[in-house]
Amino acid sequence: MHTISDYQGYFLEYLSKKTITKEPKNLYDPISYILNLGGKRLRPTLVLMASEIFGGTYKDALDAALAIEVFHNFSLIHDDIMDDAPLRRGKETVHEKWDINTGILSGDAMLINAYQLFENYEGDTFKELAKLFTKTAIEVCEGQQYDIDFETRDDVTIPEYIKMIEYKTAVLVGAAMQMGAIVAGVSKDNKSSIYDFGRLLGLAFQLQDDYLDAFGDPETFGKQVGGDIIENKKTILYLKALEFASKDEQKQLKGLFSLNPDDPSEKISTVKHLFETTGAKDKTRLEIEKYTKEAFDVLDGLSITNDKKSILKLFGSSLMNRSV
Amino acid sequence: MHTISDYQGYFLEYLSKKTITKEPKNLYDPISYILNLGGKRLRPTLVLMASEIFGGTYKDALDAALAIEVFHNFSLIHDDIMDDAPLRRGKETVHEKWDINTGILSGDAMLINAYQLFENYEGDTFKELAKLFTKTAIEVCEGQQYDIDFETRDDVTIPEYIKMIEYKTAVLVGAAMQMGAIVAGVSKDNKSSIYDFGRLLGLAFQLQDDYLDAFGDPETFGKQVGGDIIENKKTILYLKALEFASKDEQKQLKGLFSLNPDDPSEKISTVKHLFETTGAKDKTRLEIEKYTKEAFDVLDGLSITNDKKSILKLFGSSLMNRSV
Repeated sequence: MHTISDYQGYFLEYLSKKTITKEPKNLYDPISYILNLGGKRLRPTLVLMASEIFGGTYKDALDAALAIEVFHNFSLIHDDIMDDAPLRRGKETVHEKWDINTGILSGDAMLINAYQLFENYEGDTFKELAKLFTKTAIEVCEGQQYDIDFETRDDVTIPEYIKMIEYKTAVLVGAAMQMGAIVAGVSKDNKSSIYDFGRLLGLAFQLQDDYLDAFGDPETFGKQVGGDIIENKKTILYLKALEFASKDEQKQLKGLFSLNPDDPSEKISTVKHLFETTGAKDKTRLEIEKYTKEAFDVLDGLSITNDKKSILKLFGSSLMNRSV
Repeated sequence: MHTISDYQGYFLEYLSKKTITKEPKNLYDPISYILNLGGKRLRPTLVLMASEIFGGTYKDALDAALAIEVFHNFSLIHDDIMDDAPLRRGKETVHEKWDINTGILSGDAMLINAYQLFENYEGDTFKELAKLFTKTAIEVCEGQQYDIDFETRDDVTIPEYIKMIEYKTAVLVGAAMQMGAIVAGVSKDNKSSIYDFGRLLGLAFQLQDDYLDAFGDPETFGKQVGGDIIENKKTILYLKALEFASKDEQKQLKGLFSLNPDDPSEKISTVKHLFETTGAKDKTRLEIEKYTKEAFDVLDGLSITNDKKSILKLFGSSLMNRSV
């Protein structure tokens, strides 16, 4: 077995070999640009790791890993247009650097390119990968639509919110790991379990992201602390707070989430205080722990050696032990 | 064998069975909307016809036909955003009726849905269909990019223009017919020939569209005659005219193609006159005839009965005998 940073290295090497300049430049330059903006390369790394966990090679999984990363970046380009986001990883977004039409069309080409990357696999493996990819990609679109719909709804329930982040974020983590398993050619049960492990860990990770946005360490979190509060995003903290708040607190919280003050520092501290007094902070932590535990419980049912279970557990723990 | 209008009927019946309302509504309603805007359903009809030509059934080809139609409508939604078009088949475009973000995301979901429709085919057939679909879809994106690039270039050559319309329009016609052949399970040679027949006929059809835009019968053409001239579109007529014009005529034509008069009628008649005096009109007609003949020549090499060749020839002739 290799380490996570080995996998990152192998993936980056493969990526640089595969991103060659093609014509028409206005279609392919934005694709190279976004694929080379960096990032942790978490998803493709998981494809490679899962393949080795199940006795395959990381090399056989490189095309599937690249497909996942290309798809993820396609969704970033189109989401950034929809969110009107100027920056991505500290650099201009594609539609800012070029224009919206370029972002739409280059994104489309990436979505198609992702399917093309599966073509190096044999008929049945190809079909299995493409089917999983399609199911996942549709869910990601549905998750994005729910996310958009929620912005203008004030009756979003917590189960609805969980489903939204599951579709928008978590299923792709599950699919990444299952693709490694498919390439390695394992049993149906193992494929289903590793998907659930990834999906549940993805859910826990996204909920943790919500949590850290308010309560993370500004030094290590990487994003602006309080960003979700500034944008009035209805995250798990907000929904839990509303659920357990008194009528007065509910009114206060809803009021604060209709404001966009020039200096948001007071709003942030008042909202964070409400997240604490209502118990939303602790309850969110419990949710994160619940999904993390569920993910780890799935590992028990996997037919792999304990050594390999430990590797997955270690990986999960390191992911969930960001600076909470 | 059935008739073209039989196939249209079977396809429409299948389409209405398959477009059920799903959640989230804001993602799926625009998809039902555009798929039910009408149109000749030319591409899916060709899939069904090609399947029967090669001894398959139209029923087995319905999913492939729907995939082609869903893809075509995906490209219409995204192209209409890029072109800022308010109307499609006389009705509001998706991004007008909803908004641009809805158009982007619903289009993405349709592109993925198209792949999903191939899943009813067995492993190897699935892979063959998906590979052809991917190759074609990428070319359609590249064609769209060339079309955008050409708007701001004044050195577009005729071979470049032919390649652009081949990618943007003709390859999908070829792919539609080849998909019918794949579903019917024919020889490699036949698959390649029917693709070329469709591609060449698609090219001839698109060039004829350019021609009819200026010289068609306003009663029967269906679109506004002179529309390309009003929009200063560099069609084959314009490029041929520039190629054969005197220096003075070149200057005059380029001048006219930089204007956007409120009343375009004089501009249209002057440009049409230039298309005639430079010989562009006749030369375009020759190009249309050349590609139509090439398409029909391909039929000779097909290993099918003469009866079936006649059906394809008849179809091609009816397509190319619109009111010129």
